Amino acid sequence: MPETPAIDIESWVCPAPLRDAPNIVMGHGGGGAMSAELIEHLFLPAFGPAAEAGLGDAAVITVGDARLAFSTDSFVVKPLTFPGGTIGDLAVNGTVNDLAMAGARPLVLSTAFILEEGTALQDIAHVAQAVGTAALAAGVKLVTGDTKVVDTGHGDGVFINTTGIGVVDPRADIRPQRAAPGDVVIVSGDIGVHGVAVMSCREGLEFGTTVASDTAPLHGLVAAMIDTGADVHALRDPTRGGVAATLNEIARAAQVGVTLDERTLPIPAEVRDACGLLGLDPLQVANEGKLLAFVPPGDAKRVLAAMLDHPLGVRAAVIGRCVAEHPGMVVARTALGGTRVVDLPLGEQLPRIC
Amino acid sequence: MPETPAIDIESWVCPAPLRDAPNIVMGHGGGGAMSAELIEHLFLPAFGPAAEAGLGDAAVITVGDARLAFSTDSFVVKPLTFPGGTIGDLAVNGTVNDLAMAGARPLVLSTAFILEEGTALQDIAHVAQAVGTAALAAGVKLVTGDTKVVDTGHGDGVFINTTGIGVVDPRADIRPQRAAPGDVVIVSGDIGVHGVAVMSCREGLEFGTTVASDTAPLHGLVAAMIDTGADVHALRDPTRGGVAATLNEIARAAQVGVTLDERTLPIPAEVRDACGLLGLDPLQVANEGKLLAFVPPGDAKRVLAAMLDHPLGVRAAVIGRCVAEHPGMVVARTALGGTRVVDLPLGEQLPRIC
Repeated sequence: MPETPAIDIESWVCPAPLRDAPNIVMGHGGGGAMSAELIEHLFLPAFGPAAEAGLGDAAVITVGDARLAFSTDSFVVKPLTFPGGTIGDLAVNGTVNDLAMAGARPLVLSTAFILEEGTALQDIAHVAQAVGTAALAAGVKLVTGDTKVVDTGHGDGVFINTTGIGVVDPRADIRPQRAAPGDVVIVSGDIGVHGVAVMSCREGLEFGTTVASDTAPLHGLVAAMIDTGADVHALRDPTRGGVAATLNEIARAAQVGVTLDERTLPIPAEVRDACGLLGLDPLQVANEGKLLAFVPPGDAKRVLAAMLDHPLGVRAAVIGRCVAEHPGMVVARTALGGTRVVDLPLGEQLPRIC
Repeated sequence: MPETPAIDIESWVCPAPLRDAPNIVMGHGGGGAMSAELIEHLFLPAFGPAAEAGLGDAAVITVGDARLAFSTDSFVVKPLTFPGGTIGDLAVNGTVNDLAMAGARPLVLSTAFILEEGTALQDIAHVAQAVGTAALAAGVKLVTGDTKVVDTGHGDGVFINTTGIGVVDPRADIRPQRAAPGDVVIVSGDIGVHGVAVMSCREGLEFGTTVASDTAPLHGLVAAMIDTGADVHALRDPTRGGVAATLNEIARAAQVGVTLDERTLPIPAEVRDACGLLGLDPLQVANEGKLLAFVPPGDAKRVLAAMLDHPLGVRAAVIGRCVAEHPGMVVARTALGGTRVVDLPLGEQLPRIC
């Protein structure tokens, strides 16, 4: 029987970047520098040769004559229901979007629920109905699932994992590594909306706002972009860690620089106000229905036009450029004419936002 | 934007089978009758038309020229480490086996961790190393992942979801519905071992035993069975709810009866003793490295021979028959010569066993 060899736990030493926090802290789940360290210095070395390098948002694998995208996400957002959505539609759209960012048309999803003892069946029915409605809207089938129950005090109502398979468009070769100097950086609409919507109803923090989560499936928008014939280089939905984390990840993956023009960032006044109130940078706030695109300069005009024509891209805007200078770094020109480094967030700015 | 329509939560009424427990109880996660009711009466109606009927252990989908198996499972076993394994190898082997039970060769897995704030990185490294080792042993690649962190008191150390894709053997058409009267029922080895191993080290319950979990990847054994040229009708690994739950599920899916001969059940003495101590029926105790096969009578001899030749089938045994009588029911001939109904367990006999 293939047994797990005995592992000498005592001999495992936290690598330097993790040593300051020998236990898991909320920041390890923030999608920023601490998350990256946990993956790079703990998970990947521990997984060993079984891990395919990267463990990116979506893997692309070839089976027979098909190129498939494959992606997983767990959702632990708190509260379960917030203005504009629930954990249920977030769980569907989140995985649909990870597939879409690889240029794939989503086909099927699995849904796995971890339920806490004592949770009202009515609340679960509400969430499950949102899962079904969002799947129907996104055109994906729910084909397999799992349900586990944990005792009170060892869960939090409902956690959902969704994992999806999509078929990659044969015209597409979309990955962070392809971002290249000269590329135009386009965002598909207003940023910071999901994070502010969830925080506005967080216990102990309620504040009045009309902002509703932007949770939405983006594969139709991506298809419209590819249909222009453009060679889209990189796509990513700026969820945890926001636009700042996503641009830094792409800059590092492709070893290019990114320059932003802060004046062109579409940030709704309500988001700006809420971020001011909470001491947050809108660039670091999560989105659940937006994408960032890196597009060659010759293709940018038609891609932007196609986005503006799509219901989920009506507020699309060019927000920056990819440059050869400062590889791995994102630099913003501020409204006052200065420049600032837009860093990868360290840890958790808004815990359990998705 | 495709929005989730407002759901009138107040109007949702627990269907009759769920009405006795308007909140989630541990039994809903036991893999027995209550789990089935939750899926049938809450999840499937709530998912609506987006759900493909069944939501079985593994879905089989066709993409291009390939038939793919697709399966998901979350693991919440307590404690994280137990005699013979950890949550890490359980998470790999569990999903590998769900793919294998559809006659598929597992290709890739996703791994999604929900970590509790305060968990020692060393414990997570230990679990992640077990994931990597088990994946290497099973020949599956870990190609994509996710990590979320929840605050202390809202998780329990480590929960893992694994979701897998496999390629279905073109010779195989293996599904519960194909079980047919006359089929011989074969088990691949000793039963009840995993459940007893986990319970033996459960806090507040420690008892001395030499039993170690049987967690193991079964796709090699399944390939050996298919390689005989036999038309294997149905395969299932008897995890939560044990052999009793699995045989009842197959009997109901195919509307056939199953008769067991209790004297032929391979139950180790230690398992029998522990079950006596705990008041458990070994038929209801979870296994993580065993399978049940329904094989046409003409094929049974060579399938059994192939199993006995395989390291994971050396204790394989014929334990019963599929019959036309009492469709949907499992009946056992007891050692004393009587008969008893082996029912689907109601709820949770051993909570958080996987």
